[in-house]
Amino acid sequence: MSSKVKVAIIGSTGYGGVELIRLLASHPQAEVTSVISSSSAGAPIAEGYPHLTEIRTDLLDDVDPALIKSKADVVFIATPAGVAAKLVPSLLEAGLKVIDISGDFRLKSRDQYEKWYKKEAADQRYIDQAVFGLAEVYGEAVRGVDFVSNPGCFPTATLLGLIPAVKAGFIDPSTIIIDAKSGVSGAGRGASLGTHYSELNENFKAYKINKHQHIPEIEQVLTDIAGEPVVTTFTTHLVPMTRGIMSTMYAKVNGMKSNEDFISLYRSYYEGRSFVRIRPEGIWPSTKEVWGSNYCDIGFSVDERTGRVTIVSVIDNLVKGAAGQAIQNMNLMLGLDETLGLQFVPAYP
Amino acid sequence: MSSKVKVAIIGSTGYGGVELIRLLASHPQAEVTSVISSSSAGAPIAEGYPHLTEIRTDLLDDVDPALIKSKADVVFIATPAGVAAKLVPSLLEAGLKVIDISGDFRLKSRDQYEKWYKKEAADQRYIDQAVFGLAEVYGEAVRGVDFVSNPGCFPTATLLGLIPAVKAGFIDPSTIIIDAKSGVSGAGRGASLGTHYSELNENFKAYKINKHQHIPEIEQVLTDIAGEPVVTTFTTHLVPMTRGIMSTMYAKVNGMKSNEDFISLYRSYYEGRSFVRIRPEGIWPSTKEVWGSNYCDIGFSVDERTGRVTIVSVIDNLVKGAAGQAIQNMNLMLGLDETLGLQFVPAYP
Amino acid sequence: MSSKVKVAIIGSTGYGGVELIRLLASHPQAEVTSVISSSSAGAPIAEGYPHLTEIRTDLLDDVDPALIKSKADVVFIATPAGVAAKLVPSLLEAGLKVIDISGDFRLKSRDQYEKWYKKEAADQRYIDQAVFGLAEVYGEAVRGVDFVSNPGCFPTATLLGLIPAVKAGFIDPSTIIIDAKSGVSGAGRGASLGTHYSELNENFKAYKINKHQHIPEIEQVLTDIAGEPVVTTFTTHLVPMTRGIMSTMYAKVNGMKSNEDFISLYRSYYEGRSFVRIRPEGIWPSTKEVWGSNYCDIGFSVDERTGRVTIVSVIDNLVKGAAGQAIQNMNLMLGLDETLGLQFVPAYP
Amino acid sequence: MSSKVKVAIIGSTGYGGVELIRLLASHPQAEVTSVISSSSAGAPIAEGYPHLTEIRTDLLDDVDPALIKSKADVVFIATPAGVAAKLVPSLLEAGLKVIDISGDFRLKSRDQYEKWYKKEAADQRYIDQAVFGLAEVYGEAVRGVDFVSNPGCFPTATLLGLIPAVKAGFIDPSTIIIDAKSGVSGAGRGASLGTHYSELNENFKAYKINKHQHIPEIEQVLTDIAGEPVVTTFTTHLVPMTRGIMSTMYAKVNGMKSNEDFISLYRSYYEGRSFVRIRPEGIWPSTKEVWGSNYCDIGFSVDERTGRVTIVSVIDNLVKGAAGQAIQNMNLMLGLDETLGLQFVPAYP
Repeated sequence: MSSKVKVAIIGSTGYGGVELIRLLASHPQAEVTSVISSSSAGAPIAEGYPHLTEIRTDLLDDVDPALIKSKADVVFIATPAGVAAKLVPSLLEAGLKVIDISGDFRLKSRDQYEKWYKKEAADQRYIDQAVFGLAEVYGEAVRGVDFVSNPGCFPTATLLGLIPAVKAGFIDPSTIIIDAKSGVSGAGRGASLGTHYSELNENFKAYKINKHQHIPEIEQVLTDIAGEPVVTTFTTHLVPMTRGIMSTMYAKVNGMKSNEDFISLYRSYYEGRSFVRIRPEGIWPSTKEVWGSNYCDIGFSVDERTGRVTIVSVIDNLVKGAAGQAIQNMNLMLGLDETLGLQFVPAYP
Repeated sequence: MSSKVKVAIIGSTGYGGVELIRLLASHPQAEVTSVISSSSAGAPIAEGYPHLTEIRTDLLDDVDPALIKSKADVVFIATPAGVAAKLVPSLLEAGLKVIDISGDFRLKSRDQYEKWYKKEAADQRYIDQAVFGLAEVYGEAVRGVDFVSNPGCFPTATLLGLIPAVKAGFIDPSTIIIDAKSGVSGAGRGASLGTHYSELNENFKAYKINKHQHIPEIEQVLTDIAGEPVVTTFTTHLVPMTRGIMSTMYAKVNGMKSNEDFISLYRSYYEGRSFVRIRPEGIWPSTKEVWGSNYCDIGFSVDERTGRVTIVSVIDNLVKGAAGQAIQNMNLMLGLDETLGLQFVPAYP
Repeated sequence: MSSKVKVAIIGSTGYGGVELIRLLASHPQAEVTSVISSSSAGAPIAEGYPHLTEIRTDLLDDVDPALIKSKADVVFIATPAGVAAKLVPSLLEAGLKVIDISGDFRLKSRDQYEKWYKKEAADQRYIDQAVFGLAEVYGEAVRGVDFVSNPGCFPTATLLGLIPAVKAGFIDPSTIIIDAKSGVSGAGRGASLGTHYSELNENFKAYKINKHQHIPEIEQVLTDIAGEPVVTTFTTHLVPMTRGIMSTMYAKVNGMKSNEDFISLYRSYYEGRSFVRIRPEGIWPSTKEVWGSNYCDIGFSVDERTGRVTIVSVIDNLVKGAAGQAIQNMNLMLGLDETLGLQFVPAYP
Repeated sequence: MSSKVKVAIIGSTGYGGVELIRLLASHPQAEVTSVISSSSAGAPIAEGYPHLTEIRTDLLDDVDPALIKSKADVVFIATPAGVAAKLVPSLLEAGLKVIDISGDFRLKSRDQYEKWYKKEAADQRYIDQAVFGLAEVYGEAVRGVDFVSNPGCFPTATLLGLIPAVKAGFIDPSTIIIDAKSGVSGAGRGASLGTHYSELNENFKAYKINKHQHIPEIEQVLTDIAGEPVVTTFTTHLVPMTRGIMSTMYAKVNGMKSNEDFISLYRSYYEGRSFVRIRPEGIWPSTKEVWGSNYCDIGFSVDERTGRVTIVSVIDNLVKGAAGQAIQNMNLMLGLDETLGLQFVPAYP
């Protein structure tokens, strides 16, 4: 037991933070030794989250790199945008391994960050140091490093659904349209009219069309994979449910490709990776089929009439889209099997 | 009161039928004189629908054209596909005005019907006679006729969102992609695993990708408007809510057009029509904003980066997508103001 | 048209206020001439409520009795507790008819108000003047008066379900237990963790057990009806839905009574009243069966094993529990048929 | 690994069955070696449950005691009522340990079973042999036995909430009223109008008032605990959510007892048991706080005005109310720590 990796979580009172606590509780080689919240330091974490009653009886710590280092080896940052940019340097200097779940270190260009996030960007040296932790694509680069920037929820579902096709030249990158849908937990725990039950229940709404800060993150990766600049059309919608993301993606197919061609390509690309599952022909995944788990499930429909393919990709936004993939990255950083502590079955129904 | 138009409803025990009953109850110049169901004839309609207790105390009639004619002037057909094809000739011959809410008379080509519906098509003469009742577009053709085919729910939201742009040449019809989402009531009242609460709640799923029978209906109209063959990519999703459809539509913009150009074009196109509302720049409608009403609300986002426009169109699938537009057509057929009995406020929240 | 009664609504930006706007829009003899909000005065009401786009294009007025009197004959107050207490005197003095939907004038005892509401009570003279507008019970007292205090949502469902049995001595008032459940709209539009979508969706919770401010309101009426002091056990729960209240009520039956005895008693008590519907034996109403309407539906189960009766009563909290009953009271105050403008069919499904 | 206990599940295609699969997948000392379904034998289980894709690739077995014995040591029966009654004898004779999740062996009286279940009861010898597995109450009796009857979902939440108070004489058993609420998954996966999404969403309904087959199960245990015959009033409601049960319970308090008295009593009674958590004064649990976990959380409100206590008890109906408690019983039967494989954190939000 004393050989377990000690983990601290900054931002433990957000949904990403409590999901880390849930998942890490069954990790065989890690234990959460410090739950941290600048806003609620000193209070028992179970006070604001009664589901943790008798599970975590500890008090929330304040954000203090020296204190964290005295208690932990690895630290997750699950704060709103803008906070990690300032915290990361001192955490790394303290000798901690850092996994940032916020968006502060995903964009390699400070200009792009400031344009889309409307905040001051982090120091370029740390941006350069951060490895983008899309585990099934860049997992090798994550192994052994000290600092990983965890991908956004929409980019995870979207990129896992597009990369094999873009890389293999199956689709024309200039024609990509992404119609994304998310459960409400992606908006965090902050109360606002935009997260008010009576406004969202029995409602379906679009938001931030062509303005979402995940657009440059998606395009940065697709540009890297395609080897040429890629711009995309990206729409986000809010679904009256708590968890789950679906990206429905459209693109022109290069030449003649069948559903089976896509299925084979993707199965081959993700060979040996446990968390991507490809559906057979004529079957598309639904968000409930990955609920509470680290899976990303993908299905295809090639349409001969239009020469386009429709790709459907689903994840649980709080797991594969945040806490789960972050733990997968921790495993890789520590040289462990990436699936450790993450091989649970989706909760259905 | 005796001067009211007498209305019969075939398929009164489906969701489309009970919605007709709800809406017509407040119509100043029409009254429902016969509720009809072949499967439940003889039973009180309120038995299966307790919300109608003391509102409608009558028994369900069987389907009998002579009986219907003795009780009514106008008949709505709200049955599953395949039934109206057989019923309509005798109803028209009996001298009734007929509004068919099923899909049996929407496609002008019998081959197309049989390909997409997998059923035998109706008699070509009656197909030819049927006027397609997309009221804001073909309303003039509806005035005074005896037989109207009411548009499908997805086509209504989609076509009202696309037609002004296609007609004005603002967008390239060959690039149209339609990502549609519907509440569960669109699937009707029949119980199946696909409509089971525990399977759909907290779930978002795609279905019938590139296979939905509303595709040829949309393409038939767009082809008519564009003056050239149009094929589209069309995806349907099921949202965990009861009512509401959103069509999110994508297309390449021809030349340079701003959001304001689209807004002006649409406001001009729908000038004088009460049921289409165009949102101002940067605002998109949500389905709850039209819940229970006959409105179709539309918003735009032109993206200079990609040269594409995203168009968001929402309706209540049971009202503007079915019963409400059917009544709008009835009004036009009878020479009444099309808004009669339909000017109610959406139920919010 | 100029003969319509002119109506102002204070608190137009709350859910009660917008529901008044929705319902009054189809009232044949009333029209809303002023929408009022102290917090948003000067803004278009449709800005915060896009479902009102093109339906109400007017700006929100500030709260000013003289201005209100210049525009209206009747004023509804749909504000949080504590506001009406201060406003009512000047509104009455201005010569307006007033219907208060807040709880400020329901309790006849200022001490009780201050104990349960934790606020300063209104002036006793105005409390004494206010007629408690439980229309099916005290409707005669409402006719023609100038000032009505509209009942709370829980008291409406509960009292309509209990009064005939208490009055007839069918049940022992000292044994009454009320287990109430409400949709989330009852909590209003204010954003808080308690109304946050992700916290309430897929969740069922109890709140304010034995502490709810509707307890003394229920007991005051039951005491009046029973002719002896009645105290009750009352629990409130939050249901993951927007609208609807169910009160499930338990009491010891006096002597031997059958379900049919209860059904007959209630049908007789509510004879001639349109908005209470009694279910037949073995059938209980669900909240959806009254959704969007002014109905209160009631069912019974007498259990010989225990000698208790279970009474189930449902309403739409925003209609019969607030705006609808308020309009019913307005009708009575003005000498109109109480059902005017309220005879719409529940929206189902 | 070969030392793991081998487990078979009869009724693997029901919600109880797939929940057993989910939970047992992370059990350190058990593994599911046979998934069984008489209706779907021969098909891959993942076909009907795509969330199990690549997790369980095996085919469903038919129900055959000899085959089961060749593959497993322990068998769970998760079928509808009436099936286990016939299967259990041959399974026990084959030398299997049996945990029956259906209701066939809960009632000790065949007459009671036949009255409430309207089916032929099981053989009295096997009824007598079955140990009622309410683990926190009868856990000692479960240790080492071969045949356990797992409690129903409503009885589990209800009895854990009532037993300490009844046993200690804190409440008068003759005054107990139970107002229970359940998510829809309790109704199983069978499609019917009663489980149809559009009928249940945005709806709250009561059902089987005073008729539910869990009534005699609750009364049998309370009678045993109280040492005198207990009859109760019991109402069930359907909540528009998938998982979760809340029992809100009312009873007269004997003498003067405070909330703290109840809290102390319950904490003492459940001392050393991991899965019952008692809330502090003024706090009541909600169903989401136990979602996906084996916890039963309980809170109290003593009301001096009425002399009654309100007790709120919540569980996840598929875990503590079915599969989780069944595994807890398996652990006890096998002499293992009862918490093995069940110490996961509730999924929140």
